[in-house]
Amino acid sequence: MPGFKGLAVPGPSNMPFRIRQAMDVALEDHRAPDFPQFTQPLFGDLKKVFQTKSGQVFLFPSSGTGGWESAVANTLSPGDKVLASVFGQFSLLWVDLCQRFGLEVDVIDVEWGKGVPLEGYLQHLVADKEHKIKAVLVTHNETATGVTSDVAGVRKILNELNHPAMLFVDGVSSIASIDFRMDEWGVDVAVAGSQKGFMLPTGLAVVCVSQKALMAGERAKLPRCFFDYRDMIKANAQGYFPYTPAATLLRGLRAAVDMLLEEGLENVFSRHNRLASGVRAAVEAWGLRICAQGSEWYSDTVTTVFVPEGFDANDVIKTAYFRYDLSLGTGLNKLNGKAFRIGHLGWLNEIMVMQALCGVELAMRDVGVPFEPGAGAGAAVRYLSDTGQAMRIAAE
Amino acid sequence: MPGFKGLAVPGPSNMPFRIRQAMDVALEDHRAPDFPQFTQPLFGDLKKVFQTKSGQVFLFPSSGTGGWESAVANTLSPGDKVLASVFGQFSLLWVDLCQRFGLEVDVIDVEWGKGVPLEGYLQHLVADKEHKIKAVLVTHNETATGVTSDVAGVRKILNELNHPAMLFVDGVSSIASIDFRMDEWGVDVAVAGSQKGFMLPTGLAVVCVSQKALMAGERAKLPRCFFDYRDMIKANAQGYFPYTPAATLLRGLRAAVDMLLEEGLENVFSRHNRLASGVRAAVEAWGLRICAQGSEWYSDTVTTVFVPEGFDANDVIKTAYFRYDLSLGTGLNKLNGKAFRIGHLGWLNEIMVMQALCGVELAMRDVGVPFEPGAGAGAAVRYLSDTGQAMRIAAE
Amino acid sequence: MPGFKGLAVPGPSNMPFRIRQAMDVALEDHRAPDFPQFTQPLFGDLKKVFQTKSGQVFLFPSSGTGGWESAVANTLSPGDKVLASVFGQFSLLWVDLCQRFGLEVDVIDVEWGKGVPLEGYLQHLVADKEHKIKAVLVTHNETATGVTSDVAGVRKILNELNHPAMLFVDGVSSIASIDFRMDEWGVDVAVAGSQKGFMLPTGLAVVCVSQKALMAGERAKLPRCFFDYRDMIKANAQGYFPYTPAATLLRGLRAAVDMLLEEGLENVFSRHNRLASGVRAAVEAWGLRICAQGSEWYSDTVTTVFVPEGFDANDVIKTAYFRYDLSLGTGLNKLNGKAFRIGHLGWLNEIMVMQALCGVELAMRDVGVPFEPGAGAGAAVRYLSDTGQAMRIAAE
Amino acid sequence: MPGFKGLAVPGPSNMPFRIRQAMDVALEDHRAPDFPQFTQPLFGDLKKVFQTKSGQVFLFPSSGTGGWESAVANTLSPGDKVLASVFGQFSLLWVDLCQRFGLEVDVIDVEWGKGVPLEGYLQHLVADKEHKIKAVLVTHNETATGVTSDVAGVRKILNELNHPAMLFVDGVSSIASIDFRMDEWGVDVAVAGSQKGFMLPTGLAVVCVSQKALMAGERAKLPRCFFDYRDMIKANAQGYFPYTPAATLLRGLRAAVDMLLEEGLENVFSRHNRLASGVRAAVEAWGLRICAQGSEWYSDTVTTVFVPEGFDANDVIKTAYFRYDLSLGTGLNKLNGKAFRIGHLGWLNEIMVMQALCGVELAMRDVGVPFEPGAGAGAAVRYLSDTGQAMRIAAE
Repeated sequence: MPGFKGLAVPGPSNMPFRIRQAMDVALEDHRAPDFPQFTQPLFGDLKKVFQTKSGQVFLFPSSGTGGWESAVANTLSPGDKVLASVFGQFSLLWVDLCQRFGLEVDVIDVEWGKGVPLEGYLQHLVADKEHKIKAVLVTHNETATGVTSDVAGVRKILNELNHPAMLFVDGVSSIASIDFRMDEWGVDVAVAGSQKGFMLPTGLAVVCVSQKALMAGERAKLPRCFFDYRDMIKANAQGYFPYTPAATLLRGLRAAVDMLLEEGLENVFSRHNRLASGVRAAVEAWGLRICAQGSEWYSDTVTTVFVPEGFDANDVIKTAYFRYDLSLGTGLNKLNGKAFRIGHLGWLNEIMVMQALCGVELAMRDVGVPFEPGAGAGAAVRYLSDTGQAMRIAAE
Repeated sequence: MPGFKGLAVPGPSNMPFRIRQAMDVALEDHRAPDFPQFTQPLFGDLKKVFQTKSGQVFLFPSSGTGGWESAVANTLSPGDKVLASVFGQFSLLWVDLCQRFGLEVDVIDVEWGKGVPLEGYLQHLVADKEHKIKAVLVTHNETATGVTSDVAGVRKILNELNHPAMLFVDGVSSIASIDFRMDEWGVDVAVAGSQKGFMLPTGLAVVCVSQKALMAGERAKLPRCFFDYRDMIKANAQGYFPYTPAATLLRGLRAAVDMLLEEGLENVFSRHNRLASGVRAAVEAWGLRICAQGSEWYSDTVTTVFVPEGFDANDVIKTAYFRYDLSLGTGLNKLNGKAFRIGHLGWLNEIMVMQALCGVELAMRDVGVPFEPGAGAGAAVRYLSDTGQAMRIAAE
Repeated sequence: MPGFKGLAVPGPSNMPFRIRQAMDVALEDHRAPDFPQFTQPLFGDLKKVFQTKSGQVFLFPSSGTGGWESAVANTLSPGDKVLASVFGQFSLLWVDLCQRFGLEVDVIDVEWGKGVPLEGYLQHLVADKEHKIKAVLVTHNETATGVTSDVAGVRKILNELNHPAMLFVDGVSSIASIDFRMDEWGVDVAVAGSQKGFMLPTGLAVVCVSQKALMAGERAKLPRCFFDYRDMIKANAQGYFPYTPAATLLRGLRAAVDMLLEEGLENVFSRHNRLASGVRAAVEAWGLRICAQGSEWYSDTVTTVFVPEGFDANDVIKTAYFRYDLSLGTGLNKLNGKAFRIGHLGWLNEIMVMQALCGVELAMRDVGVPFEPGAGAGAAVRYLSDTGQAMRIAAE
Repeated sequence: MPGFKGLAVPGPSNMPFRIRQAMDVALEDHRAPDFPQFTQPLFGDLKKVFQTKSGQVFLFPSSGTGGWESAVANTLSPGDKVLASVFGQFSLLWVDLCQRFGLEVDVIDVEWGKGVPLEGYLQHLVADKEHKIKAVLVTHNETATGVTSDVAGVRKILNELNHPAMLFVDGVSSIASIDFRMDEWGVDVAVAGSQKGFMLPTGLAVVCVSQKALMAGERAKLPRCFFDYRDMIKANAQGYFPYTPAATLLRGLRAAVDMLLEEGLENVFSRHNRLASGVRAAVEAWGLRICAQGSEWYSDTVTTVFVPEGFDANDVIKTAYFRYDLSLGTGLNKLNGKAFRIGHLGWLNEIMVMQALCGVELAMRDVGVPFEPGAGAGAAVRYLSDTGQAMRIAAE
């Protein structure tokens, strides 16, 4: 089918040409004498993206799921208790992983559309007098529902209770797009993936670990080898890896980190917020409902949109894909058929957002969803034009 | 600036990844023993794009301007008379080229917004009892104004008068996008460029020449070497070139021709027409005027849009470019400041058109052009959704 | 430094342009409705590369080490006994992984330069009357020493003893380069990586598992999630993956498998053998010794070459790298400083081998290693020219 | 056929990945408001490559032949006399071009293997009391024979005679590889192409013109339009082009010029000289004769090698190409069948040279040319190792 495909899923995101070019290289020897001159500054700059000074970054040829597994396998022992909440497909899967690794998981079920329940966490932690809870899990941005949670709030509870549990954060669809502060929030393991805010192909778990979590690893009894932080620490210290790294992706990651730091993290975050607000303005103008139940939960990387009763969201998705070359995210688990997702993260500007919105309009009109053609696009044009001018005035 | 740039100029057009990949190859020896196995089928398939059986295709490492020059230098002698009409920047430049080569040009000036004046041509040709006019020039699609002319109509006049003049067509922004029929229309030299309907980088003049024009070349006295058809004929017959060809572009051209033929020329043309109609629906909904003065002149590859009195079209263009990463075409010559151009040709689908229209909306709103945000986008959504369904029903 | 770098390490290997092009694509939605039409034939064709009908192929975004881990974690329980032999860095590391996962490993230490000790395996298996040994590990091609072992021989022993242990094979540097027969040899888990015979960037563990091993997984108690075959089986059956797959590498893998099958596995293997023989002829002409202690151990993908007493192999490697842009493999573990390695696998032809050999000559001459310049190159030219003609005569 | 192809023709040369990446970009609007910020520094830096301060550089979407044509068409009038010498296929073709443009050419025929005859030029210029000779043509590096001529010597003659003729130099296979000094040598038009020392795909004529030649253009009566310097001057002054430029190649040219200037022209030239000397050492060791009849004519970018009597050079070339994936240059015109050419220019290092030499050895041995396998490779290894160390000592 002629024309460029549009990609508006919440990851993989749109890969910039500069990153493509950076990876369009011949394969290389990862044991070359000058390889450390490449890897060591990269690790240093990655820490800036996590906003950490004391944390240590690990790069596994893997995916976000591997990052979750690394967090658990490197710091805990069979039977350890962890506290978690489930409010979407990805928070659900992380809990499942913990259970498979023989952990005891205190699970708080939350209505999908809301995020981490601070009140519930408080109650569990208050009740945990003996500090059996070794780790608290937070899905920073639930990619299934488009809900962002309050990591700092969880840290505040832990601090107030003086509870020693580690704080693990799934930042796969937030880090490098939405403000994330490793050190300030006292995060112990933060998990990111290459294919979201880092604008790369899937294939790297980018994990940042606190010294506290590394020390916990000394006593952790879960078996690990591929994901073992200790081997990584030893080899990374020399600029190498314990086994063949995904060097091509590392070359791309170098470009990605350069781009993020050149733009400035603050600007990256505010750009995501502004573009996401444009999307939300469009959804409102269409008269549709989004999954996040209140502005405190709004995600700046993905918006989950309900279709009206009597319509199948998958019809919209398939029409967008097959007729209009636009990939929208499917509704996952119980949202399937009820909602579609618009991803708006990574290498994104106004006209890419507008393209996705218009693609949704075309597909919805074909399917018969009632709305005024142009209403969403117009609302987004108004919002983006107005705020763009405001931004430029602010910059003067 | 983050995000992909949008390209909505009337050439260069958007290059498909398949073509990029086809050109992302190591350089090669153009005298390799198996080079003819690559070039000869390519020449054969190019003839299909020109809809010719008897014409001969030439590939010069050059641009459209070089193609114009080749037409003149290979077929005419100093002092020869040609008939031409001017109704935009490109028809103007071709006349200028003829004059520099010492030809006597009968020029008919036409209001910009209209195309080749059949009546005027008829008068000149009727008056030319002695057949001093050796060639008649037609700019099939005037890229400056977005006006498509009636080549078949010119041929009809020549035939009715039994006038032996050659028919030269500038098809740079029409061929491979808008229906062009070399044989049926009796065209003697047709000039195309790589960067429009062929979806390639600039760098190839793709020229198709009738046997009649080749024979005229025997007596033509204008000097030529780089653009000499005779050297090309001799070398091409063996599958080679008289000097180093732009082999990388030829590899891309192979992919482009494959894509055009796989889609089917009919489908390529109707796709361009439908997408262009969507653009025109949007312009109408904005309450703006287009340059082409009537639907008989509408171009399916470029639309030239006037801004309202009191506005500078260049403000829209610069705002679109610098704030919204969208390249629009500038108004050329006397249209400068008065109009901007939306290119809609080549590797294009609905969401790419919508992106360009929304970029125009964003820029116009920033600049203060009065219109209802979303009106253009909505009109296009309606048109494209409605006609898309019609097309699918027709296909069943 | 000007000029192309030469890559003569035993993985990553040289990536063909066709594979680069196949991966130079925009990122894509791995949940797209037509994704299964891409993945399902790919799984089918991968089985041909493993020469299996009944095995099941898994693709993890990981590396060979992850493939090893998947073999162990999916089929065994803590305390299970496995039989293994160590004769190089990679056979050593696999044993280490088993121990970390709480397995009891019967390790046979073998002199580096030899491979799997059939006699030793026989003794252990005969002694294992109670069938406590659940799996037998074989490093098919030890990349550190350039030694290929007899997998079929191990299977023969198991069959003759009617021993039910599973047979696990590390084929990372053999599969797709050296003959490997999953079904005929009764292999239960075979582990390959993307960056060797598959000519891709690092980032995929390509694993093939027998039905017997899959059934063993039902009772296996080692924890796993990222590497869990069960999740993969379920999702792959629909053409999808349990978590985001490395889709870009999958696109490259499609091209790689096409290339292997188009060339024909038989031809791939004999090409590797002929080019490796050319390398060995050169080493002999230099008067140097290779690590493999006899032609029965010769590896067709990597040759480990000892430098003479008094020389440091790392000087040769660094000189080749920094002065001549050629990457040679370092000596690993106890071979460090004593040997360098020439990788000759994947996308390789005669002139690439000659380039590597000449790079070695240049570096050795700079370093002062005594040899006759041109001797190695000349021996390889003779061998390759002679056998090339023989091959062509055979083909007629 | 598996493996990378080797390219050892005298252009196109091997394109560096950095240049490929620089050109692997989306197409762009050549009328964009910030396009001049790209083009103007590029023109400035190109002057450094020509070693000129006062010359003006032109970039035509064309090839070297177009550059020749531009030199003639922009500065001369029909009937003007030029002085030229022929000693190979390319000097021959330039003369032919002049004749087709109606110039009167004083041609000195020189034995192929020698270069510009200073003595002959002196005689013609002395005899030309009336200064009817308007231009003197010099093929700096005859690509057919591998002969470099003395441009400075021609300038010296002109100066001594105070002859006002312009000096035109074909530097297609010398500029950016072999020392070329526009200002110091008083060159009036220098012609280069993108696909040799500039390491780019074919498609740009890179021409440098003195102020004297530009002034001559005011009176020149040959017709021109595509190649008209005057249009270029006017548009380039604003950072634009009179017609669509080959912008993708310009992006690559930016990278190429950066690479040349980063390496340093002096280093580029000495690298070419050293690698060429290695090739000549190999040819001597094979016992073969090169076309250049004395070291004063040796070309550092191409070596033309005679095969012994009774052999057909095309057999060597075809064998190298079809069996060993190596492109060698064919013998042109009367050298066809008698000689093959080894190109050694552009992005080249020692191991690339060695690869080409070994490919020649393999092909010659297959064909039966008598020589000692390894002799050429060994001689080159000796030469390159020895001179490499000398260079490094000199650098300390």
